[in-house]
Amino acid sequence: MEAVKHIHEDTVIISASKGIEQERLLTVSAIINEITAARGRSSQDRVFAREVIDKRPTAVTLAAKNQDIALLLQEVFNTDYFRVYTHSDVLGVELGGGFEKRYRHSLRICDGMGLGHSARAALITRGLSEITRLGESMGADKRTFSGLSGLGDLVLTCTGPLSRNYSVGVKLGQGQKLSGILSATKSIAEGVATASSAYGLSIKMGVEMPIVEQVYEVIYKEKNPADAVSTLLSRTLRSEF
Amino acid sequence: MEAVKHIHEDTVIISASKGIEQERLLTVSAIINEITAARGRSSQDRVFAREVIDKRPTAVTLAAKNQDIALLLQEVFNTDYFRVYTHSDVLGVELGGGFEKRYRHSLRICDGMGLGHSARAALITRGLSEITRLGESMGADKRTFSGLSGLGDLVLTCTGPLSRNYSVGVKLGQGQKLSGILSATKSIAEGVATASSAYGLSIKMGVEMPIVEQVYEVIYKEKNPADAVSTLLSRTLRSEF
Repeated sequence: MEAVKHIHEDTVIISASKGIEQERLLTVSAIINEITAARGRSSQDRVFAREVIDKRPTAVTLAAKNQDIALLLQEVFNTDYFRVYTHSDVLGVELGGGFEKRYRHSLRICDGMGLGHSARAALITRGLSEITRLGESMGADKRTFSGLSGLGDLVLTCTGPLSRNYSVGVKLGQGQKLSGILSATKSIAEGVATASSAYGLSIKMGVEMPIVEQVYEVIYKEKNPADAVSTLLSRTLRSEF
Repeated sequence: MEAVKHIHEDTVIISASKGIEQERLLTVSAIINEITAARGRSSQDRVFAREVIDKRPTAVTLAAKNQDIALLLQEVFNTDYFRVYTHSDVLGVELGGGFEKRYRHSLRICDGMGLGHSARAALITRGLSEITRLGESMGADKRTFSGLSGLGDLVLTCTGPLSRNYSVGVKLGQGQKLSGILSATKSIAEGVATASSAYGLSIKMGVEMPIVEQVYEVIYKEKNPADAVSTLLSRTLRSEF
């Protein structure tokens, strides 16, 4: 909030943040727009979402509604190890970038249950399908989710090792309840709130997100993870798209 | 070929095969159609491509042009651990199912060069983008590639460990030449032909596939892998989609 007074008409604001605000379910660019607009400085065309990974060869998406600014920043940030692609779908890049985070619980629960790589692959693919439906309902471009922000992040998660034994999700998958896990470890419920905001968005937008819903049930309603898997597998048969 | 005489008008043919024929660059369903049509038994509406993974909870795509048959087989194969989605895009499912195979070389070369997970994620995401362009140009539905056959397979690859040291691709990434690798190990060039058929398809269809092209250059033209990476990173800047 303090930074607002330093923002001029031609200031370019770059957001590299993921995640959704808990209470009102807003993305970071929406919050930036709200704050700058309240000061009479609309940043509608100056907000960016950018995926930064690390310094080895990589590719990122830089989204801006104003394509002149996107092209300018592409020139500024692109190097011989950091390839920058422009995109106009700010909302999609923001939502897609947080995809991995929102489905991390389901992956960990899956790991904790010992269901293996195929179940993981199915969870992730159908998860991307859910998030794409949600994004479309919010006005994002569905192609965005199969790009670097979305699929790219997802692949980064998948290339990591199976989840560590001490994570909350793995313990849930092993049959422990959230209350017991939290009191035993004194840890904060890392990412637990994320599961709640994803569920909140699916309700708000009226989009069917069965994985998000089951994760919510396991975390907040103490549903047995095996029953959650059964629920997912016994849904009405349908076509893939 | 011998099986053809046992195929009746109402015989359902299920193909679980991936890959493209070397010489004429045909998919398996195209070959099946060709053989059955030559015997006066068109199987145009009876060919399937199906992704089979293993017995733990998983989801697969079953594609058939004839949706009545797709729904019948969905009922037949769906179990409480094996969730079957129907799809009408046989070509896309065939091409998508082979995606992982076609890009395995690039991943191994990347591993052999020690470029890390981010480069891998970028390769895979941009690779999926290439394969989607190719599939569209051949008449497949682009959505198919972000589904279980395509992305799903890809995730399965990614969740595996980094490539083993003795694979051809890793040795290429470490700077060895194909001729030397093959003579030293007496191994057959596992999947090397796949790189050639993918390149052949990109030329035939006039689709830009920079990763496929660079892998082809490294394998068949003894291009230095570091130069191939530079070529990929120094391409004209563009938008993501």
